[in-house]
Amino acid sequence: MAGHPEVFETPAARALSETDKLRLIEALGDIPHSTDKSRVKKKSLDFYWYSPVLKTRLAEMRGDIVVTPRNEADVIQVVSICAELQVPVTVRGAGTGNYGQAVPLAGGVILDMIEMDEVVWTKPGLVRVQAGKLMLKLDRQIRATGWEQRMFPSTKRTATIGGFVAGGSGGVGSVTYGVLGDRGNINAARVITCEKTPRILELRGDQANAVNHAYGTTGIITELEMPLAPAWPWRDVVVSFDGFAKAAEFGQALALSDAIVKKLVTPIAWPIPSFLPRLNEQLPDGRDIVICMIAEPSMQGFADLVAAHGGEVVYDVDAQSVEDDPSSVLPLYEYTWNHTTLHAMKVDKSFTYLQSLFPVENSLEVVDQMIRKFGDETPMHLEMIRFGGQVITCGLQLVRFTTEERLDDIIAYHEANGVAIANPHVWTLEDGAPGKEVPAEQSIFKNHADPLGLLNPGKMRSFRPVAA
Amino acid sequence: MAGHPEVFETPAARALSETDKLRLIEALGDIPHSTDKSRVKKKSLDFYWYSPVLKTRLAEMRGDIVVTPRNEADVIQVVSICAELQVPVTVRGAGTGNYGQAVPLAGGVILDMIEMDEVVWTKPGLVRVQAGKLMLKLDRQIRATGWEQRMFPSTKRTATIGGFVAGGSGGVGSVTYGVLGDRGNINAARVITCEKTPRILELRGDQANAVNHAYGTTGIITELEMPLAPAWPWRDVVVSFDGFAKAAEFGQALALSDAIVKKLVTPIAWPIPSFLPRLNEQLPDGRDIVICMIAEPSMQGFADLVAAHGGEVVYDVDAQSVEDDPSSVLPLYEYTWNHTTLHAMKVDKSFTYLQSLFPVENSLEVVDQMIRKFGDETPMHLEMIRFGGQVITCGLQLVRFTTEERLDDIIAYHEANGVAIANPHVWTLEDGAPGKEVPAEQSIFKNHADPLGLLNPGKMRSFRPVAA
Repeated sequence: MAGHPEVFETPAARALSETDKLRLIEALGDIPHSTDKSRVKKKSLDFYWYSPVLKTRLAEMRGDIVVTPRNEADVIQVVSICAELQVPVTVRGAGTGNYGQAVPLAGGVILDMIEMDEVVWTKPGLVRVQAGKLMLKLDRQIRATGWEQRMFPSTKRTATIGGFVAGGSGGVGSVTYGVLGDRGNINAARVITCEKTPRILELRGDQANAVNHAYGTTGIITELEMPLAPAWPWRDVVVSFDGFAKAAEFGQALALSDAIVKKLVTPIAWPIPSFLPRLNEQLPDGRDIVICMIAEPSMQGFADLVAAHGGEVVYDVDAQSVEDDPSSVLPLYEYTWNHTTLHAMKVDKSFTYLQSLFPVENSLEVVDQMIRKFGDETPMHLEMIRFGGQVITCGLQLVRFTTEERLDDIIAYHEANGVAIANPHVWTLEDGAPGKEVPAEQSIFKNHADPLGLLNPGKMRSFRPVAA
Repeated sequence: MAGHPEVFETPAARALSETDKLRLIEALGDIPHSTDKSRVKKKSLDFYWYSPVLKTRLAEMRGDIVVTPRNEADVIQVVSICAELQVPVTVRGAGTGNYGQAVPLAGGVILDMIEMDEVVWTKPGLVRVQAGKLMLKLDRQIRATGWEQRMFPSTKRTATIGGFVAGGSGGVGSVTYGVLGDRGNINAARVITCEKTPRILELRGDQANAVNHAYGTTGIITELEMPLAPAWPWRDVVVSFDGFAKAAEFGQALALSDAIVKKLVTPIAWPIPSFLPRLNEQLPDGRDIVICMIAEPSMQGFADLVAAHGGEVVYDVDAQSVEDDPSSVLPLYEYTWNHTTLHAMKVDKSFTYLQSLFPVENSLEVVDQMIRKFGDETPMHLEMIRFGGQVITCGLQLVRFTTEERLDDIIAYHEANGVAIANPHVWTLEDGAPGKEVPAEQSIFKNHADPLGLLNPGKMRSFRPVAA
């Protein structure tokens, strides 16, 4: 973008010579791999095209070969070969990230973790699982024992747990449990270092922060030990309001209601509800809404809160039935978080979005200020979460994209008014972080886990390998 | 007390003539009742003697007769008779209140609800139960289904659910779910009005606030519908610190940790740990502690938090085993809330206590200010809770009692410095409330539920029956 030219510096792709490619393939032995062009293309890209800025810049990025390890021994073998041959490695879950988290910037091996999807063990309230496990499958597997995942992205149906931890920060469930980075949401991560002689590290508790939201640049996650939540009987509920201010106030009040058990609180301004396929048929025209997941035993308190805020329940179904059979209306979480943007883009390709954290003290005032400033250019979509012990109002505002300069201006205006932006229109760790730098524990840990700087070189742009 | 003489005005006991007593007894028919003096004495009193102020003033308060209804029909019959004969009625659970909630101020019938202890129904996350159910028994009964009560007092072993709702405000579990008055913590209350022709009212949701913490003055609760919590495997844990400030900071941080599942966070300053029977043998001399109940799957995050705050885990056992067999160390919750005071009083009879809410913005600073001001006169005991969506630091400070004037001064100093006091040294609803008045919904509702003003007359001192 105009103001930040350094953002789009990328490392020169390390041309993998035909000789090296043959050595690599030979060394892989029976580990499944493919150099098929369409497969390599598919596995090189994610939902980066959410961003019109990234769309033009990442579209041609490719790895050289897709390798699909079956187990940890395979991972170690692949990494060892790559370290020997100085081949970049980009780790990939299901590729549901939407700002290029899994797009290789310098070619090399795409390490597709999707086959490593075993549950290692479960205990009451805990699961140990391989990184490639699909999150929907995991929930289905553990639900019978009375537990479910604390949080998941709106892409739960297709996302892997490893991809979520490596590429995400929170999601559905964060309104109760906070974000992945909040102490206590990741019990442990098993990580393979990227070296000629790879080591297996067990990162316990706080240590696991080193691999959360680092896009696979700080080691290869093979297993995760995740604390679970009790599997409540959830209701998918939509409440409509006369005016977005009322919807947002209700959302904030609900997020603050410790006695009402909930998993999702998503205030959405008109006309966004009209973009939500099939659900839109059940929603009143012109009304702002709050999408919620509420535990069934909390519906009495919820109804009282709705009444106190002048809302009207316009949709109320058993969430589990809809997740099991999404043939008509989708599970409500598939209308929230980044799926809201997706549905809007299907209606109007010019839509993109922001990721923002409104200031705690006067969040709804600032939300209102932004609505008044930008109007229909940035239809408002909020997600209420807990983060660092506080209720935080997140904005995933839609943006009607015109030019990069205008997008920069919109971001700058938000930042100037106390709204922290986690910019989804950049492709480095640094530029995407509200603080514009990599957390110290991750930059320090990278020296241990990736001393050669082979894990998607350029992604952590501030890193300079000592050993290279 | 010196500053508030009106607090100790009590209504003249409505002398129950021998004729009326005989008419009453005759009308009771086969409903169990007793006029045995020792039984009447026992059932007229509660733990009012926690307060040296109340101890001298409530000790001689007596009802005339104890009636023990077996079912709702019995309650209706008793109430109808009492309305006919203008006999006061004081409803009683297990009498574990500690500021005279269940002490009759004007004689009459003690309505002992202890025999009405059936579970009406259970659903996932909800229970409907008669008011006289013992809370420990209820937890034991529902635990097999995977649920437990959201919160309970430290007297869980002997308290009734009806008494807790009518006389309490929160307790063990409030650090997660907030207080009973937070919307969503009481689903419904079934209430009998005190009239010649008693009505049965079903108070749903918010409406149930009319009977919460009203000490039985706003109708007779016969059933409660309570939302439950998942039955986590709990650890009873004590962490010790070098200095109370560190203990309090840890307690606050833990209360704010949404990702660490917890039921109890109780910072206690030395020498109070030395007063805790049997547990004290396991605690290091001179150290300040935080008593916690932590869900087992959260122990990794908890350990990290302890380390980050320089604490040391000095006790860590399975909570369920201890509750089932409290023959050595008690369940940790029996060392917290008002039990802390009880244990201290057993060591030194001069102890009493305060109930305070520290200001949200700078609670730990004000805690420190009070410690510096009063020192060993008010050994510090905090309970971390959620209330109205915020983490609140409650003080149940011990007080070495000397005179009522000095107690008044201590309270006044706290109030002057922004600490709200729910005074446990008074016996009316009004004087015990931080705002010194009955919530509007309770004073309004009392006109409907007790138009004759027969429910423990004097307890809601601002009430003037229209019909009397």
